[in-house]
Amino acid sequence: MPESDMPPLIRSLLDANRSYVAGHPAIPENVAPSARLAIVTCMDVRIDPLALLGLRLGQAHVLRNAGARVTEDVLRSLVISQQALGTNAVILMPHEGCGVLGLDVRTLRPRVAAPPSDVPVLDFHAMQDLEAALAEDLVSLRESPWIGTDVQIHGLVLDVARGAVRYPGL
Amino acid sequence: MPESDMPPLIRSLLDANRSYVAGHPAIPENVAPSARLAIVTCMDVRIDPLALLGLRLGQAHVLRNAGARVTEDVLRSLVISQQALGTNAVILMPHEGCGVLGLDVRTLRPRVAAPPSDVPVLDFHAMQDLEAALAEDLVSLRESPWIGTDVQIHGLVLDVARGAVRYPGL
Repeated sequence: MPESDMPPLIRSLLDANRSYVAGHPAIPENVAPSARLAIVTCMDVRIDPLALLGLRLGQAHVLRNAGARVTEDVLRSLVISQQALGTNAVILMPHEGCGVLGLDVRTLRPRVAAPPSDVPVLDFHAMQDLEAALAEDLVSLRESPWIGTDVQIHGLVLDVARGAVRYPGL
Repeated sequence: MPESDMPPLIRSLLDANRSYVAGHPAIPENVAPSARLAIVTCMDVRIDPLALLGLRLGQAHVLRNAGARVTEDVLRSLVISQQALGTNAVILMPHEGCGVLGLDVRTLRPRVAAPPSDVPVLDFHAMQDLEAALAEDLVSLRESPWIGTDVQIHGLVLDVARGAVRYPGL
């Protein structure tokens, strides 16, 4: 497709990507995470997950969703991370002030045009208490028969404004 | 908890995090993505999602799982991204040579100790063809009654070794 026919958003992203590639970025060659680590954190715009834990590209898988919650998708991704790519540690890293904390799911609405019977029910995994949700997610991973008993599973809580993490010992 | 009682992995991550915080990182203050964009990409260790699209912290939500597949978790996260935080564009960005491409799910096993009846069935979202899977995921988002008709949804394919993206026009 000629670039002039592409959506403007795509044209500008392709442009930016050409600059990135032209700068010969240092991209690691290994596919298996060298620190044997998977980080699960939030999609929040303020989080630089590798940098804030002193990690570099190549060292860890990074999984991100709304709230850093342990969902079926996170579980399946971790099974692939562990069994196909050799990771043996997981850090769950939700953050203070997360939008999923206290989220009123009644404000989330499907398109009005769709007949209600066509709208799948979504569990938004809203949290009322950050540490309680983290504790629950840690237990769900630790007890999952899909996760090996040799896998370390820890939680860290991120103060996103400062980029500082603390270990709640859960 | 005294730091000496913490797991060694946590001690070393806390140490690295103190250096990060001491360096006064430039963390944006906005919570809503300023480019009104959400990027969905893979957990792969070689991907620097913002950098390769010329974006900075603060501009886009970043969602990551095994394969950049559209799962229920991705859908719920995008609904929150759009309806609670104002994004109106989604880029799905899977990559060539992904581990989920051609993944033989028969090699993925639960812990032997668990009785089979306790093992939930997981859909690993394995792909046989990258562009076919991307096309399917784009359609599933575009047709979801949870996604507004005003939301732009595009796909980019990443050549992860070079960091280069191309627009397949799907």
